[in-house]
Amino acid sequence: MRKGIATVSISGTLGEKLTAIARANFDGVEIFENDLVTSLMPPSEVRRRLADLGPSVDLYQPFRDFEAMPPEIFPHNLRRAERKLDLMAELGATTLLVCSNVSEYAVNDDALAADQLHQLAELAHDRGFRVAYEALAWGRHVRDYRHSYDIVAAADHPHLGLCLDSFHILSRGDDPAGIRLIPWEKIFFVQIADAAQLSMDVLQWSRHHRCLPGQGSFDLPGFLEHVVASGYRGPLSLEVFSDIFRRAEPGPTAADAMRSLLFLEESLRARLTTTGGLAGEGARERVELFDPPGPAVLTGYEFVELAVAPDGTPGTAEALRSLGFRLAGRHRSKAVELWRQRGLCILTNSEPGAGAGRPPGPALLAIGVGTGDQLRSANRADALLARILPRRRGPGEVYLPAVRVTGDTSLFFCPAGSGEQPFWLADFLLDQEGVPSGAGLTHVDHVALSLPFDQFDEAVLFFRSVLGLEPQESIELPEPHGLIRSRSLTNLDGSVRVVLNLPQLGSSAESHRGMHHVAFACEDIFATATALREHGLRVRPISDNYYADLVARWELPDQRVAALRAGGILYDRAPGGGEFFQLYTDAIGDQLFVEVVQRTGGYQEYGAANAATRLAAQR
Amino acid sequence: MRKGIATVSISGTLGEKLTAIARANFDGVEIFENDLVTSLMPPSEVRRRLADLGPSVDLYQPFRDFEAMPPEIFPHNLRRAERKLDLMAELGATTLLVCSNVSEYAVNDDALAADQLHQLAELAHDRGFRVAYEALAWGRHVRDYRHSYDIVAAADHPHLGLCLDSFHILSRGDDPAGIRLIPWEKIFFVQIADAAQLSMDVLQWSRHHRCLPGQGSFDLPGFLEHVVASGYRGPLSLEVFSDIFRRAEPGPTAADAMRSLLFLEESLRARLTTTGGLAGEGARERVELFDPPGPAVLTGYEFVELAVAPDGTPGTAEALRSLGFRLAGRHRSKAVELWRQRGLCILTNSEPGAGAGRPPGPALLAIGVGTGDQLRSANRADALLARILPRRRGPGEVYLPAVRVTGDTSLFFCPAGSGEQPFWLADFLLDQEGVPSGAGLTHVDHVALSLPFDQFDEAVLFFRSVLGLEPQESIELPEPHGLIRSRSLTNLDGSVRVVLNLPQLGSSAESHRGMHHVAFACEDIFATATALREHGLRVRPISDNYYADLVARWELPDQRVAALRAGGILYDRAPGGGEFFQLYTDAIGDQLFVEVVQRTGGYQEYGAANAATRLAAQR
Repeated sequence: MRKGIATVSISGTLGEKLTAIARANFDGVEIFENDLVTSLMPPSEVRRRLADLGPSVDLYQPFRDFEAMPPEIFPHNLRRAERKLDLMAELGATTLLVCSNVSEYAVNDDALAADQLHQLAELAHDRGFRVAYEALAWGRHVRDYRHSYDIVAAADHPHLGLCLDSFHILSRGDDPAGIRLIPWEKIFFVQIADAAQLSMDVLQWSRHHRCLPGQGSFDLPGFLEHVVASGYRGPLSLEVFSDIFRRAEPGPTAADAMRSLLFLEESLRARLTTTGGLAGEGARERVELFDPPGPAVLTGYEFVELAVAPDGTPGTAEALRSLGFRLAGRHRSKAVELWRQRGLCILTNSEPGAGAGRPPGPALLAIGVGTGDQLRSANRADALLARILPRRRGPGEVYLPAVRVTGDTSLFFCPAGSGEQPFWLADFLLDQEGVPSGAGLTHVDHVALSLPFDQFDEAVLFFRSVLGLEPQESIELPEPHGLIRSRSLTNLDGSVRVVLNLPQLGSSAESHRGMHHVAFACEDIFATATALREHGLRVRPISDNYYADLVARWELPDQRVAALRAGGILYDRAPGGGEFFQLYTDAIGDQLFVEVVQRTGGYQEYGAANAATRLAAQR
Repeated sequence: MRKGIATVSISGTLGEKLTAIARANFDGVEIFENDLVTSLMPPSEVRRRLADLGPSVDLYQPFRDFEAMPPEIFPHNLRRAERKLDLMAELGATTLLVCSNVSEYAVNDDALAADQLHQLAELAHDRGFRVAYEALAWGRHVRDYRHSYDIVAAADHPHLGLCLDSFHILSRGDDPAGIRLIPWEKIFFVQIADAAQLSMDVLQWSRHHRCLPGQGSFDLPGFLEHVVASGYRGPLSLEVFSDIFRRAEPGPTAADAMRSLLFLEESLRARLTTTGGLAGEGARERVELFDPPGPAVLTGYEFVELAVAPDGTPGTAEALRSLGFRLAGRHRSKAVELWRQRGLCILTNSEPGAGAGRPPGPALLAIGVGTGDQLRSANRADALLARILPRRRGPGEVYLPAVRVTGDTSLFFCPAGSGEQPFWLADFLLDQEGVPSGAGLTHVDHVALSLPFDQFDEAVLFFRSVLGLEPQESIELPEPHGLIRSRSLTNLDGSVRVVLNLPQLGSSAESHRGMHHVAFACEDIFATATALREHGLRVRPISDNYYADLVARWELPDQRVAALRAGGILYDRAPGGGEFFQLYTDAIGDQLFVEVVQRTGGYQEYGAANAATRLAAQR
């Protein structure tokens, strides 16, 4: 479908916004009035600029407080509308958005509203323009799309139709199924936004906390199924008021916005295929929907790669040894070392430029995940606009396609299912000793990325769309100097888990930037804790008060608590009875924490109840 | 009254919190469980530390989900309570806060709740402890203080009473008048927090957006009138969950918290004096309330002082001349120059250290306000814990007491009513020419301070308490890369107006830090605009699109709009018809904007409707 975006969805001056939107290959743009009013660029210049850049002006918005006005105000409103229609002509816009009246002067009279909208449609008609009427969720009398359609139907003017906005409909908990009953000729425009479920004033929610499709929790494919079932064929235009995008860079926001629409189209296609949702639509043209290669099955983490300085970054080797790893090989053509323990592989990369721009590491440089179909994974990533990273590959070396995740982290697609001797190890000269059993660490349980404010939702969308992981809802974790917002994603069998952390407040947002975590799984955390101590590992000291509280909370046996305390192990229990054990080591350098965890009884979370204690211990 | 504060109100580790609280001279502290659980300090050490520092432990909190539980859960809850009572004994706490149950397992049975609370009170009684029961605004069955009192009355145990929290009562819009009917012996504890009126989920509002008394909009003196009318005599304890305090420095927060309680006591005293609120309280001891000197009448701005480099900071003199000011004198003993225009005085200070720590100015260093009673103003500031600034005064020079406002700005109390030849000008060697009429600027309309996140509410409280200004509600202003929160305060006759701006988001929060504004008033902005142009002043260019929108919005006559456009003048109109004109000059250096305004017809605001245009122009 034709894809658009409102200028208000992106930061910057109007010129910066238009450039970013065009670069992201949008077909159309909604000009948000305030962006034009504050700009030094005249409307005619905006028109010229867009003619050069590509996108057309699909909508001018918003025109407020117009309809259902008493006779002493309405003539002023008509004159106001004429000024705006003049402006649209200069701008090259042909559709005007009228949102339902919020003024205290508005009269609760649908016939009056219809009559006045008819008059506006006549004015628009004279110029060949159209008027799209939208029910705001907080309109004074009109809040519901059915109500706005009743008024449009009563006004009965070919140049008057509806604008439907997913936020205004889904935020109120309205059933969008009624949309399929609206004649498609009467739907002039569809705006799309997602949002997390928040219990707050809907106007504030709408103006500050919308997000891109796939980043929130609205059922947008379900919404759009009704939209296309009506016969509507586009455009889909993003209108995302967001406190995050207000301050993010315009270019990356626009690129991410395009990815979100592509992923949404794919999800809609999947839904329509399942529901057969377009049966009986014979009369309408086919819906054109994006169709990338579907996600391949992921089988788990294959490796974790750390950037280290050419001297190996002092302390890194000691830290890895104390975790039970042993240096087990070297890359044939690159300055990369291989450390192993059971099925676990850690690569330390001291190539020039590996840690470019970062303080001396070790820093998380990349993760490798196993996929049932490397090429499919890579092609899907490319289709969904992930940045494919150029790689230098020696003759005969293994093909491992890599994409940028976000910020400074990359992801490699490795062939799956190669067990203890992964295929990609062929690139390494291995020593002759066997793989050490080390401290009993078996695999990577999860990787936690600490992201700045403008990469958090972007990363959610990346993992959800490119890898096909399922996100959980966000939670908030308190720490001594702030709050951390945290959201996890996982594949179906839990073999690839990612946690995204966003330090939200002040000093914490500063100090924790870039402190990624790698969590290793083990089968017996008490034995592993003992083994780690024997390897010389230092565990973060945990407050005795924490264990006293555990006793009160869970009534654990004394012996159990003593063992937890001795190992510096944190504990959590799921409502269903599954248990979680975690222990944190000292930071390795200033950008990486290592955690060791054990899950029993189907525990699926990450020990949020321990976060405050853990974060205090990590200061 | 006895004054306390909960550790959760302040950032840092438990040790940092306790130190800050003690330094601010609080009598008591509430230990918030999570602060203890995450601390490496054992309870006995907390007790010892507090014995050294001064404050006692007035409350241990919160104990959750205790009462009205089914028989299969309740025994566990009793054992859990015993653990916490043990802990309290180590800690030296004697009162336990139980907040109303939010668990899905809780039974809607007041008799059961009363019975179980009675059992807990028995346990507490055995150790000489007390239990204070609090209705959370979002409790599962108990949300209202009357309901919690009914349960406490039914439980009928001398060691069981109530905790009343202003937030839980006022956030629900409850009438606090019923508090005066509760026997004072049954009110064990009173927690105080203020908050701005927000339309959001009350739990989120409570956990993130509480603020100190005087910073929000709750009627706390009204609340406390009922509390003291019941016979309750203390303590008053601040429990302020705040995303701001979480990340602010603990010391300044604690000091500000003490100021807020002092000001609240003064407000309560004033209220009780008016209402005669304590008649019939003969049996109870007198309420001890803070009684500082009342605020003196303020008469307007006397001067604005700018820090400049020893070379005068290139461009400053030119900028002042282009605004119509003339160099009119020099300070007798300091490197301070006097610039005048009509009744306006600007001081430029190039003393070593005047702009200490700041980039080369000019920067707003101080404001001078006229007061009807210098000594009263200074003594009130001192009593309310404002920092009195040491000043070097030459022999025979005028006494002008100064206090720190916030961050890097000071305030001088000048003798009022000296008209065109202020008394304090005696410190200056004046030239012999008359005062220039300049460009028609007559006085300072307002000063706008741009503050970082942790000084905004602090400044609200400073101006409200120390100067007696009345605050308006906060508003939010959009700008190209973020949002600005803005709040104005003014004295009764509008002669002293202050606007506080808080850049809220990302890059804008960086770039606008320290961009203070000074707004000068004039009597005819069109004449002044012409005069300023003749003086060579550069006005910020305003978008033509803005004027096109003004025409649509207000239907102003063409000639009027042409004059506004020619002068680069922004326009606003109040619902009552008053008008506002404003024009912005280029920034003077990188820390100061100068604005020229004219108010007609009783307009009281600051042109918020123009903010987006103005902020875009100022980029």
